[in-house]
Amino acid sequence: FDYDGPSMKTSVPGPRSQELTKQLGEIQNVGAINFFCNYEESRGNYLVDVDSNRMLDIYTQISSIPIGYNHPALLKLMANSTLVNRPALGILPPENFPEKITESLLSVAPSGMTRVQTMACGSCSNENAYKAMFIWYRNKERGHNIPSDEDLSTCMINQAPGCPDLSILSFMGGFHGRTMGCLATTHSKSVHKLDVPSFDWPIAPFPRLQYPLEEFTKENAQEEARCLEEVEDLIVKWRQKGKPVAGIVIEPIQAEGGDNHASPDFFRSLRNIAHKHGCAFHVDEVQTGGGSTGKFWAHEHWGMDDPADIVSFSKKLLTGGYYHKDELQADKPYRIFNTWMGDPSKNLLLAEVLNVIRRENLLEEVMRSGKALLNGLYELQAQYPGILSRARGQGTFCAIDIRDDATRNSLLLKARDKGVLLGGCGDRSIRFRPALIFKEYHVHIFLNIFNDVLAQH
Amino acid sequence: FDYDGPSMKTSVPGPRSQELTKQLGEIQNVGAINFFCNYEESRGNYLVDVDSNRMLDIYTQISSIPIGYNHPALLKLMANSTLVNRPALGILPPENFPEKITESLLSVAPSGMTRVQTMACGSCSNENAYKAMFIWYRNKERGHNIPSDEDLSTCMINQAPGCPDLSILSFMGGFHGRTMGCLATTHSKSVHKLDVPSFDWPIAPFPRLQYPLEEFTKENAQEEARCLEEVEDLIVKWRQKGKPVAGIVIEPIQAEGGDNHASPDFFRSLRNIAHKHGCAFHVDEVQTGGGSTGKFWAHEHWGMDDPADIVSFSKKLLTGGYYHKDELQADKPYRIFNTWMGDPSKNLLLAEVLNVIRRENLLEEVMRSGKALLNGLYELQAQYPGILSRARGQGTFCAIDIRDDATRNSLLLKARDKGVLLGGCGDRSIRFRPALIFKEYHVHIFLNIFNDVLAQH
Ligand code: FES
Repeated sequence: FDYDGPSMKTSVPGPRSQELTKQLGEIQNVGAINFFCNYEESRGNYLVDVDSNRMLDIYTQISSIPIGYNHPALLKLMANSTLVNRPALGILPPENFPEKITESLLSVAPSGMTRVQTMACGSCSNENAYKAMFIWYRNKERGHNIPSDEDLSTCMINQAPGCPDLSILSFMGGFHGRTMGCLATTHSKSVHKLDVPSFDWPIAPFPRLQYPLEEFTKENAQEEARCLEEVEDLIVKWRQKGKPVAGIVIEPIQAEGGDNHASPDFFRSLRNIAHKHGCAFHVDEVQTGGGSTGKFWAHEHWGMDDPADIVSFSKKLLTGGYYHKDELQADKPYRIFNTWMGDPSKNLLLAEVLNVIRRENLLEEVMRSGKALLNGLYELQAQYPGILSRARGQGTFCAIDIRDDATRNSLLLKARDKGVLLGGCGDRSIRFRPALIFKEYHVHIFLNIFNDVLAQH
Repeated sequence: FDYDGPSMKTSVPGPRSQELTKQLGEIQNVGAINFFCNYEESRGNYLVDVDSNRMLDIYTQISSIPIGYNHPALLKLMANSTLVNRPALGILPPENFPEKITESLLSVAPSGMTRVQTMACGSCSNENAYKAMFIWYRNKERGHNIPSDEDLSTCMINQAPGCPDLSILSFMGGFHGRTMGCLATTHSKSVHKLDVPSFDWPIAPFPRLQYPLEEFTKENAQEEARCLEEVEDLIVKWRQKGKPVAGIVIEPIQAEGGDNHASPDFFRSLRNIAHKHGCAFHVDEVQTGGGSTGKFWAHEHWGMDDPADIVSFSKKLLTGGYYHKDELQADKPYRIFNTWMGDPSKNLLLAEVLNVIRRENLLEEVMRSGKALLNGLYELQAQYPGILSRARGQGTFCAIDIRDDATRNSLLLKARDKGVLLGGCGDRSIRFRPALIFKEYHVHIFLNIFNDVLAQH
């Protein structure tokens, strides 16, 4: 299934590759890209590019293609060349990559953002977003982007100024992933963090609001003001410590940490504080993104034109990655980079998922079933005040607190044995994370079963 | 395409799930697993388990299934339910997971290892391997695995003793990934590290050998002894600093750093040093694993029964992950964890790749074509001594040095325009990373073209 030998039509990159590079350059840093590939036509040891050049490939996607392109045994298994030949996207993207990314990720870009970097999971999305913020911050400090000789030599041995003492401000109860950079900003449960070395970075309190929010506006506003004040204090304190805050990272709703909400006002003020102190503002939508709050991004509920400098995503988006403002793009290729930089087979799925969301008006469905779900939870909570409290939610992204951890776990198991699969979060909350096709009648199936479980408890 | 409602046959986990959990327990920590799933039968909002229980799913693989299971629009695109429904493997694996992992990853397990943890890329493989070493080391220090109250409270705010000052010893020129934990052990090029905060961890020199190795055995042995001595010094020094070395990480051949080799003796001594000082020994085979050195794992060339405590992989293995000795398994569930924990669709491909490697005797092919390649490079180097030097390699995992960076890059471009795709590494090396189906006649195609390029230079 191999070709006879190389066959060259143009020099490389040829005109079609150059055109596509320009196109993708509107969306990403393309400094590392060699040329665009035709993975359908590639075979065995030969990689074919979009200008029909056929090259003997002795690099194989940074050494990651084990038995050549489109091996018949793998094609038989998958019948789709996108699934069989995972490209090193940062250097050798497929022809349809700019188009696919435009019709998928860019079609749902947050307000004010036209650039997106694909990654493979929530952790590498956040790690690379942090790196982008550090790079941006250091270049801002330098006043230009030319590192000194000292920068270049010290960074190789993990020392400042090359590896600077910068920090990311995060919130108690936040969860941003489990690789070591992310983990330094994660403060949900001790089991996530115990025994892993970390960074001395500032951690602000996240507002602990009373629910339903409408009934406690005054108390909640006070609590949010307290947290915002603490954020400013920490920024000043860490600057004085010599570990300036390059970026602030926050979830629109703290998910793993127990479904903690805050008001649009809180986030607007926080965004202003970031701006005032020259910190980048990173909204982590790994769990909230993709429609379950009734808007595609949870931050849309804040009603801002310029909600963030970076928005990261994964999970429901199937591919990981992050959107960013132009100035947060790394100034050179290979600074934000890895072997795969995502996976086009996931982009393919995402494009179709977005089509279904639009065709079936799933965001409206989410609003409708979310309202039914929350009202149902309010009723149950009134009925079982000794067990349930603090029902809360946005769209179907809902949660409710249970008396204690033991009761929570027993309710989860009992519901499961009656055919309802739920998840816990925080110390004693149950979180609701249905798919976007969760309709009102599914809500009623759930409420009936959950009612039975509570009645028997 | 949805079911009518839940339908329960057994309590959950049912007998089949329990049996599979036991089976997988031989290979991995299964503490987080809820039950095993039948993803083919799952539809819409309903997840079906291996005991034919059908549950309304309000958790959706930790919130990562956007439009329900087996949505017809996605099935039309992929025609394979494994590709359409990516499970949260750590909690809800598919029925065939233990079997698939046994026939794929375990069938090529390194000597002395019977346990493997799947991950999604080289970086999360290494990050989690480091975490496993830190957890193991701290439990060893404690003498038991029960954290103190102080451990539990300090870890939430990134402070010792909960987040202890432990370190990983790495080597200058090493590359282990780009997330922040990995990056603290990466020392290949400044562009990878500049501006990113790091850890004060010890960095040992990697032997700088003279090639061909056979001709410089005495000089090389001296150089290796120097580096080993330095390793021991650093371990002692960092212990005194209060940042004990929990693990040593090394590549069998430093790849990104310029294809630097060391002798089996060097690695055997290093493994002994790790043992003597109570550090875990982690061999990073992300780039060397999968057959291109002529053995499936490069460390097999060391001829040891007990080569390592941890071996990480990715790239040619298509899925990421790491093998580990029993004692390196985290003591509790959710300590080594993330949403996806790999991707079964990659395992599917890997099983087939391994079949092809065996059926077609590809490791022998690699030995054969590797020998032809290295001999060809020796000849070219004799012919162009002003341009080429230090040809070296194992199997087809070969490299050669070029006079300088500029000449290297111009040779790469000229070879490409003649139809040969090569990669650079280090300051001025060219690396050869063909697929395993690269035969002797491909070597000759390459050598002819490269000869032309050199002649015209
Ligand atoms: S860190 Fe994201 S896939 Fe490995």
